[in-house]
Amino acid sequence: MGVEPGLLDAGAVVLRERLATGALCCVELAEAYLARIEAREEDVKAWAWLDPEHVRKQASALDAYRASGRPIGALHGLPVAVKDIVDTAGIPTANGTPIDAGRVPHSDAGVVERLKAAGALIVGKTVTCELAYMHPSATTNPLSPEHTPGGSSAGSAAAVAAGMVPLALGTQTAGSVVRPAAYCGVVGFKPTFGAIGRRGVLAQAPSLDTVGVFARDPEGAALFAEALVGHDPQDRATSPAPHPRLLSCVQAGAPVEPAFALVRTPYWEKADTEMREAIEELADALGERCFVVELPEPFAQADAARQRIQLAELAKCFHHYWQHGREQLSPAMTEAIEKGLALPARDYIAALDWVDVLNAALEQIFERCDAILTPAAPGPPPKRNAGTGEPVFNGLWTLCRTPALTLPLFEARNGLPMGAQLVGRRGDDGRLLRTGRWLLDFVARTQES
Amino acid sequence: MGVEPGLLDAGAVVLRERLATGALCCVELAEAYLARIEAREEDVKAWAWLDPEHVRKQASALDAYRASGRPIGALHGLPVAVKDIVDTAGIPTANGTPIDAGRVPHSDAGVVERLKAAGALIVGKTVTCELAYMHPSATTNPLSPEHTPGGSSAGSAAAVAAGMVPLALGTQTAGSVVRPAAYCGVVGFKPTFGAIGRRGVLAQAPSLDTVGVFARDPEGAALFAEALVGHDPQDRATSPAPHPRLLSCVQAGAPVEPAFALVRTPYWEKADTEMREAIEELADALGERCFVVELPEPFAQADAARQRIQLAELAKCFHHYWQHGREQLSPAMTEAIEKGLALPARDYIAALDWVDVLNAALEQIFERCDAILTPAAPGPPPKRNAGTGEPVFNGLWTLCRTPALTLPLFEARNGLPMGAQLVGRRGDDGRLLRTGRWLLDFVARTQES
Repeated sequence: MGVEPGLLDAGAVVLRERLATGALCCVELAEAYLARIEAREEDVKAWAWLDPEHVRKQASALDAYRASGRPIGALHGLPVAVKDIVDTAGIPTANGTPIDAGRVPHSDAGVVERLKAAGALIVGKTVTCELAYMHPSATTNPLSPEHTPGGSSAGSAAAVAAGMVPLALGTQTAGSVVRPAAYCGVVGFKPTFGAIGRRGVLAQAPSLDTVGVFARDPEGAALFAEALVGHDPQDRATSPAPHPRLLSCVQAGAPVEPAFALVRTPYWEKADTEMREAIEELADALGERCFVVELPEPFAQADAARQRIQLAELAKCFHHYWQHGREQLSPAMTEAIEKGLALPARDYIAALDWVDVLNAALEQIFERCDAILTPAAPGPPPKRNAGTGEPVFNGLWTLCRTPALTLPLFEARNGLPMGAQLVGRRGDDGRLLRTGRWLLDFVARTQES
Repeated sequence: MGVEPGLLDAGAVVLRERLATGALCCVELAEAYLARIEAREEDVKAWAWLDPEHVRKQASALDAYRASGRPIGALHGLPVAVKDIVDTAGIPTANGTPIDAGRVPHSDAGVVERLKAAGALIVGKTVTCELAYMHPSATTNPLSPEHTPGGSSAGSAAAVAAGMVPLALGTQTAGSVVRPAAYCGVVGFKPTFGAIGRRGVLAQAPSLDTVGVFARDPEGAALFAEALVGHDPQDRATSPAPHPRLLSCVQAGAPVEPAFALVRTPYWEKADTEMREAIEELADALGERCFVVELPEPFAQADAARQRIQLAELAKCFHHYWQHGREQLSPAMTEAIEKGLALPARDYIAALDWVDVLNAALEQIFERCDAILTPAAPGPPPKRNAGTGEPVFNGLWTLCRTPALTLPLFEARNGLPMGAQLVGRRGDDGRLLRTGRWLLDFVARTQES
């Protein structure tokens, strides 16, 4: 009895295959992950809510369902973690703030409905920074307890990195998926804005808020995201479009060797030397498959525009917390709301125009490459007492609504991970994931030789 | 030779039939209208730009085109007027402000492209209030020179009312189509927000700006609007949806007698006694086909929300005028921009939420009726020195993005027209126009008996 330990880290697609054929049953898989959680949670503190009995009950029900011979869902039996700003019916959802302590939603978020419909096993709720913003959470980096796992999807990134679940849900408004994935050394995928519906997910800045995923490999991210993508009439950012085939796209592989554009961004000087060197070395290794692109001048102002949008919408969306629980908000959140409240409408509306302006320039880059190559974060994870790290390499792409992918490609001198970020054309998420798989293989081949 | 004078006022659909069969040629029709313009323009001042030779050239070309036997467009040979905030390639477009005097656009607005593709004859550009806002224009009411034609689509409404053209283009951000139509005694139709694309039309408040039409009857409005509706990738408010059949819907008539909801709105007390009496009498005459609906409490705050949206977006959209021509702006415009610049982003974003809140309530009303019946303006046109009249009965529906139709049903004691307004469900423009036709016939029958 028992699951071979290596299998737990084999990636969601492998697990899904075994579960589908019956080679692996959901109950034994769940027990193995619960043992991992038991062993690591005291240090990692990834979970805001977790009830082993709730896990076991779902696992038994899923095994019984499969045994009935009915067709199984795309995520059948796969244990997943859900960031605690995503509503789960009957399960506490506290949004990372004491103001919402004990809050139990009546309905599931749209993504949770999709998870259940696809047969996923919802392990529990993962720790988030306060209201998915910047105030550090209690979660530690599974690779080094004194370092930050990043934020705001801290618990989700840490849970995947610690091998507690193969898949986890996160959200990104500035850099809350791509950056924690980089710090924890896992794959993080922020799809095109609007791909995944946000009904029942805490709104912080609806022009930016994007649901994303953590996984151990691009295939896992593709499998997971594909099950979540789709139109939700209650989220106007989504649209009734044909369903993308993300997993089969990654599995089919790149038909020709992909091309990359090295984009240093206006924030290049904010990256650590070792991050800059790692990215440059990778670009060198790619040779003629990688060319350098300088972003035109307006990009230097993009992050200021994104911040204006985030703060203005945050001040509006969190008005209720401001009115009814101000004394329980962190200084960082108080400052953000105050800044947002002081923003004139005109500056906010003008900032929204940047999305089209910047994408017009990006389109020209994407005509020549499959993905932009750029850092996922300024370097390895900072110490926990220094905050959750800077989203300076993420905000631009969140503003532009492009898909972005963290690949845990580099190791810093202190042994901690550094992430490369690939950015794709809006709507071309499959190609981005496929290019990510190609790059992982390329680096593996390079290191072997 | 020459056109029987009655034909000029017979409505666009009748003219279109005669032009299509060849019973009427474009050149003679154009000459007849030019004679009307010649006779009335000195008093009415409807035109910002008009060149008789330009008209004659188009008319000859259109006759030659028809003679070639090729299929003709939906508006073949119909003279139309274009509000002077709509770009026309090679023809001055001054947006009602001296700052843009002499401005000649390089490209046509999307609606002008559609006009040309449909074979319309573009007679000229009609006077607009400054930047389509409130500062009164030089245009007079064709029915009484000392009264206002309303604003901001002053010239378009007046041109149709004076029989200078059968059709004219206008725009509405608060009440700039429905109200001038009422004051001038013609049909005004503001379609569902987003039905007609706005590329190349001066943006004042993109969340509200709606292109609309003036005509002599609902059939003309339907014919005209149908030719203009459609997706424009450069106007995100439009959507790729099946093309509506507006004219055939009006011509088919109502399958059963329509039901009306009398909505007095929170502004009922701002209507003149004679307007209130006229609407109540009409409701009485409709008997059981009309029921009274009280709008729920939030509607009382709707106009304040709409004003916030308008002023905030106006301050952003007109920033260029503010920076480079402030001394040439009217006091009303200066005040509006200053108010807009002072608005906090939070209040603006919160105001946008009202659209969904209010429409949820309206949906319940539209489940029980074909159209809402309400005043198109507080009363007959005010004197010109008192401004362009109040949009207090229009802003709510512009905010809600519902289609609205002015029917020139009433006459005030001073002999000037008063308009009833019908409001329809979003996207159900054909039904609204059809209901308008039914109501005109109903009133005609009632008056006969």
